[in-house]
Amino acid sequence: MKEILSIVKIGGNVIENADELDQFLLNFSQLEGPKILVHGGGKLATKLASRLGIESQLANGRRITDAKSLEIITMVYGGLSNKNIVAKLQALDTNALGLSGADGNAIQAHKRPVKNIDFGFVGDIDGINSKLLDTLLQAGITPVFCAISHDGKGQLLNTNADTIASEIAIGMSSIYDTTLYYCFEKKGVLMDVEDGESVIQYINTKTYSDLLEKEVIADGMLPKMENCFHALQNNVGKVCIGDISMLQPNAKLFTTLTL
Amino acid sequence: MKEILSIVKIGGNVIENADELDQFLLNFSQLEGPKILVHGGGKLATKLASRLGIESQLANGRRITDAKSLEIITMVYGGLSNKNIVAKLQALDTNALGLSGADGNAIQAHKRPVKNIDFGFVGDIDGINSKLLDTLLQAGITPVFCAISHDGKGQLLNTNADTIASEIAIGMSSIYDTTLYYCFEKKGVLMDVEDGESVIQYINTKTYSDLLEKEVIADGMLPKMENCFHALQNNVGKVCIGDISMLQPNAKLFTTLTL
Repeated sequence: MKEILSIVKIGGNVIENADELDQFLLNFSQLEGPKILVHGGGKLATKLASRLGIESQLANGRRITDAKSLEIITMVYGGLSNKNIVAKLQALDTNALGLSGADGNAIQAHKRPVKNIDFGFVGDIDGINSKLLDTLLQAGITPVFCAISHDGKGQLLNTNADTIASEIAIGMSSIYDTTLYYCFEKKGVLMDVEDGESVIQYINTKTYSDLLEKEVIADGMLPKMENCFHALQNNVGKVCIGDISMLQPNAKLFTTLTL
Repeated sequence: MKEILSIVKIGGNVIENADELDQFLLNFSQLEGPKILVHGGGKLATKLASRLGIESQLANGRRITDAKSLEIITMVYGGLSNKNIVAKLQALDTNALGLSGADGNAIQAHKRPVKNIDFGFVGDIDGINSKLLDTLLQAGITPVFCAISHDGKGQLLNTNADTIASEIAIGMSSIYDTTLYYCFEKKGVLMDVEDGESVIQYINTKTYSDLLEKEVIADGMLPKMENCFHALQNNVGKVCIGDISMLQPNAKLFTTLTL
């Protein structure tokens, strides 16, 4: 029997709200067993960029990460958010340690190749340093990742936090029985997007294709679900989607995905 | 025989100059054996604060770290400088991992008590997590510290980088034979401050009191020297002061301090 490892991703909406972040971190700190946190960005970087008069660069309507944006992201998510989350977790007796993908060569990536759009300093992940993460976990440490990877040639790369979480879960599945949690502002995958309580509690490959056919799942939820099934197809045991209350021991209303 | 551990501190002047930083990191990466880097701040944070219209707060002419300054410091040193140094060291085949004192509870501190001046969020160090650092070093990792500690209650604290370096060296001396290097813009402790080549190559407790008497050592150099002797009196084997060339194997011109 492998030990259970929880990989939890929180979105930018949670990070931006101080009260919600504190509540989340309390729930996270009480989660038993080894665990890893991945935090997304949110609008903090955009706000700082705007204060500095740096405009978002777009290409074909898609945001791109130029050198200045990458600096802002590294400051805000790699510095401000990451270090404050770590300090708060320490106060909750969780021995957190903040990481970007460059730290300990934790997440190896390459700059996304230019096809129609040059996304700039955006990373596509090649691999996870599961040995490093296992060493840290075995030492009682809780790794806390910001959404930055590196190319091994000295370049930091802005990287999707959902993808970092799923790739970490996949990479750790050879050593641990992994559960991947996506915490966001909703209670789960909704049957009716207008009804926040209409949570679909279980989704598997079969019901997922039904939901797709009925167009229940669309737009922003699609890439997230693809990420989830990609993880499940690569040995991640279980994926859960919900709001921050999902991590509480008595939580009932959230979505669980299995193959 | 204990293994030799090198603890290297670089000042803000080195960090600010991209070419000098690259040369330093090359020298540092070639330093044999386990090693730890501590980087100071420099003017990057002041520059960002000024761009954001945040004024330095002074009390009795001394700079204080208010909440906004601490945010800037956390972004610039904990994020931008630290992650870029780590990424560059990775490219030089040094498995660097960036840390603040909150990460892994590496540096425990308390907010400096208010006497005549309230310095704000400034930390005085209580202890070093030598077990964590040894675990990382044994895993082939090179810890890279920014000058931030924490109070264990969720508060990050701006902390003097020279002191962090000496406290780490002291804390690791029970496990390793430690050498502490202070890299700055000069070639060493100078006999004549106007002559950059007039390096005093060896200083011990006896010659130090002679130099103090003759007022050769004064002003900015005094706290640095006090830090050095504090380290030596607490089991650090050797302290070296010089510019970035000091780390090269054939380096000759720098200052070595022993008891």
